Amino acid sequence: MDESDNKATQATAEDYFVPADAGSRHTIFPGVQIQTMAGNQIMLSLVTFEPDSQVLDHAHPHEQVGMLLSGNLEFTVGGITKTLGPGDKWRIPGGVRHAVKAVNGPATALDVFNPIREDYL
Amino acid sequence: MDESDNKATQATAEDYFVPADAGSRHTIFPGVQIQTMAGNQIMLSLVTFEPDSQVLDHAHPHEQVGMLLSGNLEFTVGGITKTLGPGDKWRIPGGVRHAVKAVNGPATALDVFNPIREDYL
Repeated sequence: MDESDNKATQATAEDYFVPADAGSRHTIFPGVQIQTMAGNQIMLSLVTFEPDSQVLDHAHPHEQVGMLLSGNLEFTVGGITKTLGPGDKWRIPGGVRHAVKAVNGPATALDVFNPIREDYL
Repeated sequence: MDESDNKATQATAEDYFVPADAGSRHTIFPGVQIQTMAGNQIMLSLVTFEPDSQVLDHAHPHEQVGMLLSGNLEFTVGGITKTLGPGDKWRIPGGVRHAVKAVNGPATALDVFNPIREDYL
Protein backbone atom coordinates (compact mmCIF):
# COMPACT_ATOMS: atom_id res chain seq x y z
CA MET A 1 0.00 0.00 0.00
CA ASP A 2 1.57 3.31 -1.01
CA GLU A 3 0.98 6.65 0.66
CA SER A 4 -1.97 7.63 -1.54
CA ASP A 5 -3.78 4.40 -0.65
CA ASN A 6 -3.14 5.10 2.99
CA LYS A 7 -4.60 8.59 2.75
CA ALA A 8 -7.66 7.32 0.89
CA THR A 9 -8.60 5.03 3.77
CA GLN A 10 -7.70 7.46 6.59
CA ALA A 11 -10.76 8.76 8.41
CA THR A 12 -10.93 12.48 9.16
CA ALA A 13 -12.77 14.56 11.79
CA GLU A 14 -15.49 15.24 9.22
CA ASP A 15 -16.21 11.51 8.94
CA TYR A 16 -16.93 11.25 12.66
CA PHE A 17 -18.22 14.69 13.73
CA VAL A 18 -20.93 16.84 12.14
CA PRO A 19 -21.45 20.41 13.47
CA ALA A 20 -24.91 21.51 14.64
CA ASP A 21 -25.36 23.84 11.67
CA ALA A 22 -24.41 21.22 9.05
CA GLY A 23 -26.52 18.57 7.40
CA SER A 24 -28.91 18.25 4.50
CA ARG A 25 -32.04 20.41 4.81
CA HIS A 26 -35.45 19.69 3.33
CA THR A 27 -38.95 21.12 3.75
CA ILE A 28 -41.00 17.92 3.79
CA PHE A 29 -44.43 19.52 4.42
CA PRO A 30 -45.47 23.17 4.80
CA GLY A 31 -43.93 24.38 8.06
CA VAL A 32 -42.04 21.12 8.64
CA GLN A 33 -38.27 21.26 8.05
CA ILE A 34 -35.68 18.56 8.55
CA GLN A 35 -31.89 18.58 8.86
CA THR A 36 -30.36 15.15 8.35
CA MET A 37 -27.12 13.30 8.99
CA ALA A 38 -26.43 9.89 7.48
CA GLY A 39 -24.24 7.22 8.98
CA ASN A 40 -23.94 3.84 7.31
CA GLN A 41 -27.26 2.25 8.28
CA ILE A 42 -28.66 4.95 10.59
CA MET A 43 -29.97 8.39 9.61
CA LEU A 44 -30.70 11.18 12.10
CA SER A 45 -33.32 13.75 11.15
CA LEU A 46 -33.79 16.83 13.32
CA VAL A 47 -37.34 18.02 12.66
CA THR A 48 -38.72 21.51 13.38
CA PHE A 49 -42.49 22.01 13.30
CA GLU A 50 -44.12 25.42 13.03
CA PRO A 51 -47.32 25.77 15.08
CA ASP A 52 -50.16 23.62 13.67
CA SER A 53 -47.94 22.19 10.93
CA GLN A 54 -48.38 18.53 10.10
CA VAL A 55 -46.83 15.51 8.45
CA LEU A 56 -49.64 13.82 6.56
CA ASP A 57 -50.43 10.14 6.90
CA HIS A 58 -47.83 8.02 5.10
CA ALA A 59 -45.71 4.88 5.42
CA HIS A 60 -42.23 3.77 4.33
CA PRO A 61 -40.32 0.51 4.56
CA HIS A 62 -37.73 2.03 6.94
CA GLU A 63 -38.06 1.55 10.67
CA GLN A 64 -38.47 4.92 12.43
CA VAL A 65 -37.91 5.75 16.10
CA GLY A 66 -37.58 9.17 17.70
CA MET A 67 -37.80 11.46 20.68
CA LEU A 68 -39.62 14.75 21.19
CA LEU A 69 -37.13 17.47 22.17
CA SER A 70 -39.52 20.39 22.73
CA GLY A 71 -43.21 21.23 22.35
CA ASN A 72 -46.13 18.88 21.85
CA LEU A 73 -46.96 16.54 18.98
CA GLU A 74 -50.21 14.74 18.29
CA PHE A 75 -48.90 11.48 16.85
CA THR A 76 -50.99 8.83 15.11
CA VAL A 77 -49.33 5.47 14.45
CA GLY A 78 -51.22 2.49 13.06
CA GLY A 79 -54.51 4.17 13.90
CA ILE A 80 -53.55 4.92 17.53
CA THR A 81 -53.34 8.62 18.49
CA LYS A 82 -51.44 10.07 21.46
CA THR A 83 -50.34 13.59 22.40
CA LEU A 84 -46.65 13.61 23.32
CA GLY A 85 -44.49 15.96 25.40
CA PRO A 86 -40.72 16.50 25.70
CA GLY A 87 -38.79 13.28 26.25
CA ASP A 88 -41.58 11.03 25.01
CA LYS A 89 -40.47 8.52 22.35
CA TRP A 90 -41.98 6.59 19.46
CA ARG A 91 -41.13 3.45 17.52
CA ILE A 92 -42.75 2.77 14.18
CA PRO A 93 -42.04 -0.54 12.45
CA GLY A 94 -41.44 -0.36 8.69
CA GLY A 95 -44.66 -0.22 6.69
CA VAL A 96 -46.88 1.12 9.51
CA ARG A 97 -48.81 4.28 8.56
CA HIS A 98 -48.26 7.38 10.68
CA ALA A 99 -49.07 11.11 10.84
CA VAL A 100 -47.98 13.95 13.12
CA LYS A 101 -49.34 17.39 14.02
CA ALA A 102 -47.72 20.14 16.12
CA VAL A 103 -50.17 21.23 18.83
CA ASN A 104 -49.85 24.08 21.38
CA GLY A 105 -47.10 25.88 19.42
CA PRO A 106 -43.88 24.88 17.70
CA ALA A 107 -42.06 21.61 18.33
CA THR A 108 -38.68 20.00 17.72
CA ALA A 109 -38.06 16.26 17.37
CA LEU A 110 -35.21 13.92 16.57
CA ASP A 111 -36.19 11.11 14.20
CA VAL A 112 -34.03 8.09 13.41
CA PHE A 113 -34.33 5.84 10.36
CA ASN A 114 -32.90 2.44 9.50
CA PRO A 115 -31.85 1.95 6.80
CA ILE A 116 -30.88 5.37 5.40
CA ARG A 117 -33.71 7.30 3.71
CA GLU A 118 -32.13 8.09 0.35
CA ASP A 119 -34.79 10.76 -0.28
CA TYR A 120 -33.52 12.72 2.77
CA LEU A 121 -29.82 12.74 1.84
CA MET B 1 -58.31 -16.71 13.03
CA ASP B 2 -60.22 -16.62 16.35
CA GLU B 3 -60.46 -13.64 18.67
CA SER B 4 -57.41 -14.57 20.75
CA ASP B 5 -55.23 -14.72 17.63
CA ASN B 6 -56.52 -11.33 16.63
CA LYS B 7 -55.64 -9.82 20.01
CA ALA B 8 -52.20 -11.37 19.93
CA THR B 9 -51.30 -9.55 16.72
CA GLN B 10 -53.04 -6.26 17.54
CA ALA B 11 -50.56 -3.46 18.28
CA THR B 12 -51.28 -1.27 21.29
CA ALA B 13 -50.27 2.28 22.28
CA GLU B 14 -47.43 0.79 24.35
CA ASP B 15 -45.93 -0.78 21.22
CA TYR B 16 -45.66 2.59 19.50
CA PHE B 17 -45.26 5.18 22.29
CA VAL B 18 -42.87 5.18 25.25
CA PRO B 19 -43.26 7.89 27.95
CA ALA B 20 -40.30 10.08 28.90
CA ASP B 21 -39.94 8.41 32.30
CA ALA B 22 -39.99 4.85 30.95
CA GLY B 23 -37.15 2.76 29.55
CA SER B 24 -34.40 0.52 30.81
CA ARG B 25 -31.86 2.29 33.05
CA HIS B 26 -28.21 1.38 33.47
CA THR B 27 -25.16 3.05 35.03
CA ILE B 28 -22.51 2.25 32.42
CA PHE B 29 -19.62 4.16 34.04
CA PRO B 30 -19.39 6.16 37.28
CA GLY B 31 -21.58 9.24 36.79
CA VAL B 32 -22.83 8.08 33.37
CA GLN B 33 -26.41 6.83 33.24
CA ILE B 34 -28.44 5.67 30.27
CA GLN B 35 -32.16 5.18 29.66
CA THR B 36 -32.86 3.06 26.60
CA MET B 37 -35.72 2.23 24.24
CA ALA B 38 -35.47 -0.61 21.74
CA GLY B 39 -37.25 -0.77 18.42
CA ASN B 40 -36.61 -3.66 16.06
CA GLN B 41 -33.21 -2.73 14.66
CA ILE B 42 -32.70 0.69 16.28
CA MET B 43 -32.01 1.44 19.95
CA LEU B 44 -32.21 4.92 21.48
CA SER B 45 -30.07 5.63 24.54
CA LEU B 46 -30.55 8.88 26.44
CA VAL B 47 -27.26 9.49 28.26
CA THR B 48 -26.73 11.80 31.26
CA PHE B 49 -23.18 12.69 32.24
CA GLU B 50 -22.29 14.13 35.61
CA PRO B 51 -19.50 16.79 35.50
CA ASP B 52 -16.13 15.24 34.56
CA SER B 53 -17.63 11.76 34.14
CA GLN B 54 -16.33 9.68 31.27
CA VAL B 55 -16.98 6.69 29.07
CA LEU B 56 -13.66 4.92 28.73
CA ASP B 57 -12.19 3.91 25.38
CA HIS B 58 -14.04 0.93 23.89
CA ALA B 59 -15.49 -0.45 20.68
CA HIS B 60 -18.49 -2.58 19.69
CA PRO B 61 -19.69 -4.05 16.41
CA HIS B 62 -22.82 -1.85 16.43
CA GLU B 63 -22.91 1.36 14.45
CA GLN B 64 -23.44 4.35 16.78
CA VAL B 65 -24.63 7.84 15.90
CA GLY B 66 -25.87 10.56 18.23
CA MET B 67 -26.53 14.18 19.05
CA LEU B 68 -25.50 16.31 22.02
CA LEU B 69 -28.61 17.75 23.70
CA SER B 70 -26.97 19.89 26.40
CA GLY B 71 -23.53 20.63 27.81
CA ASN B 72 -20.14 19.87 26.31
CA LEU B 73 -18.47 16.55 25.52
CA GLU B 74 -14.86 15.90 24.63
CA PHE B 75 -15.27 13.06 22.16
CA THR B 76 -12.48 10.89 20.79
CA VAL B 77 -13.30 8.63 17.85
CA GLY B 78 -10.68 6.59 16.02
CA GLY B 79 -7.95 8.69 17.63
CA ILE B 80 -9.50 12.05 16.61
CA THR B 81 -10.60 14.31 19.49
CA LYS B 82 -13.13 17.14 19.26
CA THR B 83 -15.05 19.15 21.88
CA LEU B 84 -18.74 19.23 21.02
CA GLY B 85 -21.61 21.54 21.96
CA PRO B 86 -25.40 21.25 21.83
CA GLY B 87 -26.70 20.08 18.45
CA ASP B 88 -23.35 18.67 17.33
CA LYS B 89 -23.55 15.08 16.04
CA TRP B 90 -21.31 12.03 15.76
CA ARG B 91 -21.22 8.89 13.63
CA ILE B 92 -19.07 5.96 14.67
CA PRO B 93 -18.87 2.94 12.36
CA GLY B 94 -18.99 -0.45 14.05
CA GLY B 95 -15.62 -1.53 15.45
CA VAL B 96 -14.11 1.97 15.74
CA ARG B 97 -12.78 2.78 19.22
CA HIS B 98 -14.23 5.79 21.02
CA ALA B 99 -14.23 7.56 24.40
CA VAL B 100 -16.17 10.50 25.83
CA LYS B 101 -15.69 12.94 28.70
CA ALA B 102 -18.08 15.57 30.06
CA VAL B 103 -16.32 18.93 30.22
CA ASN B 104 -17.55 22.27 31.64
CA GLY B 105 -20.31 20.65 33.71
CA PRO B 106 -23.02 18.05 33.13
CA ALA B 107 -24.18 16.95 29.69
CA THR B 108 -27.04 15.07 28.05
CA ALA B 109 -26.82 13.17 24.77
CA LEU B 110 -28.99 10.94 22.64
CA ASP B 111 -27.16 7.91 21.26
CA VAL B 112 -28.51 5.56 18.61
CA PHE B 113 -27.35 2.01 17.93
CA ASN B 114 -27.93 -0.40 15.06
CA PRO B 115 -28.51 -3.22 15.63
CA ILE B 116 -29.96 -3.33 19.16
CA ARG B 117 -27.40 -3.51 21.99
CA GLU B 118 -28.66 -6.52 23.90
CA ASP B 119 -26.53 -5.48 26.91
CA TYR B 120 -28.55 -2.24 27.19
CA LEU B 121 -32.03 -3.83 27.13
